[in-house]
Amino acid sequence: MPVFLNASDDNFETAFAELLGAKREDSPDVDDIVAGIIADVRARGDAALIDLTAKFDRLQLTPQTLRFSKSEIEALIAEVPGDERDALELAADRIRAYHERQMPEDAYWTDESGAELGWRWTPVSAAGLYVPGGLASYPSSVLMNAIPAKVAGVERLAIVVPTPDGVANPLVLLAAQIAGVDEIYRIGGAQAVAALAYGTETIPPVDKITGPGNAFVAAAKRRVFGKVGIDMIAGPSEILVIADGDGNPDWIALDLLSQAEHDESAQSILITDSPVLAEAVTTAVERHLETLERRAIAAASWRDYGAVIVVDDLDRAAALSNRVAPEHLELCVADPDALAEKITHAGAIFLGGWTPEAIGDYVGGPNHVLPTARSARFSSGLSVMDFVKRTTLAKMTPAALRAIGPSAETLANSESLQAHGLSVRARLTHLNE
Amino acid sequence: MPVFLNASDDNFETAFAELLGAKREDSPDVDDIVAGIIADVRARGDAALIDLTAKFDRLQLTPQTLRFSKSEIEALIAEVPGDERDALELAADRIRAYHERQMPEDAYWTDESGAELGWRWTPVSAAGLYVPGGLASYPSSVLMNAIPAKVAGVERLAIVVPTPDGVANPLVLLAAQIAGVDEIYRIGGAQAVAALAYGTETIPPVDKITGPGNAFVAAAKRRVFGKVGIDMIAGPSEILVIADGDGNPDWIALDLLSQAEHDESAQSILITDSPVLAEAVTTAVERHLETLERRAIAAASWRDYGAVIVVDDLDRAAALSNRVAPEHLELCVADPDALAEKITHAGAIFLGGWTPEAIGDYVGGPNHVLPTARSARFSSGLSVMDFVKRTTLAKMTPAALRAIGPSAETLANSESLQAHGLSVRARLTHLNE
Repeated sequence: MPVFLNASDDNFETAFAELLGAKREDSPDVDDIVAGIIADVRARGDAALIDLTAKFDRLQLTPQTLRFSKSEIEALIAEVPGDERDALELAADRIRAYHERQMPEDAYWTDESGAELGWRWTPVSAAGLYVPGGLASYPSSVLMNAIPAKVAGVERLAIVVPTPDGVANPLVLLAAQIAGVDEIYRIGGAQAVAALAYGTETIPPVDKITGPGNAFVAAAKRRVFGKVGIDMIAGPSEILVIADGDGNPDWIALDLLSQAEHDESAQSILITDSPVLAEAVTTAVERHLETLERRAIAAASWRDYGAVIVVDDLDRAAALSNRVAPEHLELCVADPDALAEKITHAGAIFLGGWTPEAIGDYVGGPNHVLPTARSARFSSGLSVMDFVKRTTLAKMTPAALRAIGPSAETLANSESLQAHGLSVRARLTHLNE
Repeated sequence: MPVFLNASDDNFETAFAELLGAKREDSPDVDDIVAGIIADVRARGDAALIDLTAKFDRLQLTPQTLRFSKSEIEALIAEVPGDERDALELAADRIRAYHERQMPEDAYWTDESGAELGWRWTPVSAAGLYVPGGLASYPSSVLMNAIPAKVAGVERLAIVVPTPDGVANPLVLLAAQIAGVDEIYRIGGAQAVAALAYGTETIPPVDKITGPGNAFVAAAKRRVFGKVGIDMIAGPSEILVIADGDGNPDWIALDLLSQAEHDESAQSILITDSPVLAEAVTTAVERHLETLERRAIAAASWRDYGAVIVVDDLDRAAALSNRVAPEHLELCVADPDALAEKITHAGAIFLGGWTPEAIGDYVGGPNHVLPTARSARFSSGLSVMDFVKRTTLAKMTPAALRAIGPSAETLANSESLQAHGLSVRARLTHLNE
């Protein structure tokens, strides 16, 4: 059974703190294994990739077949039914339109000292996207990772995707094609991350690696961080629904279950000011659980990490939600815009009863790669910003240097950095000669 | 002696690759020690901080004296000479003015389906800044870390700074006051990072930790990453100067030395199309080295990691610089703006001979916390963006859901995520009833 809490109860704070502190993922200690795999790929390149793919994916590759050929991709994509292709294209168009608005602007101005200041954004040159194999091989995630990279202007975009027993997911390949991906390699695990970070004879290295993966992939991304950039390390998915008494219990139950069905460690929380709705949603969850294909997973998630919290008013609901800092937040209330104003920490907000979280997973437009495990307190979802970087610009004139140079010299000397001071002084002396 | 290379030589590629690959920092293996310290602070809180500060800083604290009192700060600040105070205030004003332009904008729009989409930026609630003690206790770094946080709207900003033998740097305290820092604790090392991340009886936890530190501090930041956000882990400083034959050899030599004097692992590189200038700068470096107070450090850095590269033309210089992706790039050439257009990877660019890099360390306005070790290929200097995070917004209308909902359902089913599909279908069914 999920946790039921009433925010007016005496022991609420203790129980809520427990909910916040619950550790929802026990990654096995894979770090040593991953370190060995990375060392192997660095030492033996393609040969290591081929051996490891034979071992883990039961697939015999050669340097020539590490990468999907154009004709293989075309042949597999041809299998995709028309409605799925249309849906993927609609999703891609909407994601692209949303992310194009994220491109940051360059700036350059002259300040009152006469100094010219500013910054310029440039794309990462090459990026690699990890796409999981098997059941968790989601074409929607290919779009969500690849489109922001291409919008940012990344020139070379490579995908790595394991194909256990040689079985590829045609929809993943189609999503890659629609998003403009340049290279697709049939490798996975820590070895694929190592190949992207360090390069092999066949695979040139990239500058940034994004995309979800299992504990081995996460550990490998942590290890290559610094050599390349990485995105966040995603934890299990989460949803928090704030609903008033007019919420539709059936819809809310399905929204809660759409997180729960992802993973036994996923978390679904309902906060409501209506005890009647709390009861009705709980009943609806139990009813839907009976018919879900993934009911074993969803039921375990709801039982172990689910929570229903009754509050006196919606302000309290917003305050509690801010302490959770959920990945997904649905506001199924009469005035969702007003309530959204009170939200300070959340990865994505879905406003009103007509906006199920699943819309955001596929076709809404915003990214579905979002901060988990309370990290929305300090981080953001994936965006174009993850594939660009800022170079700051400064240009002094003689007059500007005369105006502000002496202060730089004073501070350099106070920090005992003599050459810093002299580099300014030498120019000021020249100006005074 | 530094490396001398000519880009036309046959073996240039090999030598240049070696320069790029040189490992300039051997952090001792401190990770186990740091893990123990963090566990101790989590278990014993203030008591652990007090014991560790007695041990490492030879300073006996109590829970009451962990934090600097207002009157202590005022008394120490009163010692600061007027010219240093003025310089710090000028620097703070300029840094604030620059960073205020970085505040990102919210967006909210209605697309052609009728869906309302957008995003909203909110500040991190609480941030902690690490300030090293002793020689590397730089007031300028306090400004560079604290001002972007305050511009972003961070409500609670705490500094941790070790005070070995109880000796505090009055300029650091003054910089903190000018920048609007709310709390200052006299603790350092991994224990200070642990206290900021997990909190103790006296120190409330923060959401994000930034600021430079030694190998212990860097290892601690890596370990608490995820529980809180961190900034980049900074490596040794770097400068690359591109100069034509009209460059002033004396100024360029001092600019190269102003990085070299930071650290024996710092790196200074000159790329020029003038063999005469290359020679003159080298001579000037040797001459200035004789008189520098920090000549032992600067000479070791120049000898072990310095490089002078002669190229046929400045386009080649830009291309080589892009492969280095330097932290600081000076363009001491006749037309620095034109050359800057060819730069794709650099932390900060200093345009023209009147802009010594030291201006950027103190009073230029842009941040001096910049990506090192070639990470300008994929990351940016510290900015307001490090202290805000984006929440995406989506609001469907019945019409919008009718238009795009079926595609979401199709994709959910193709990914075998049944509850996702049902959450959309339940609403569509209602609309069709």
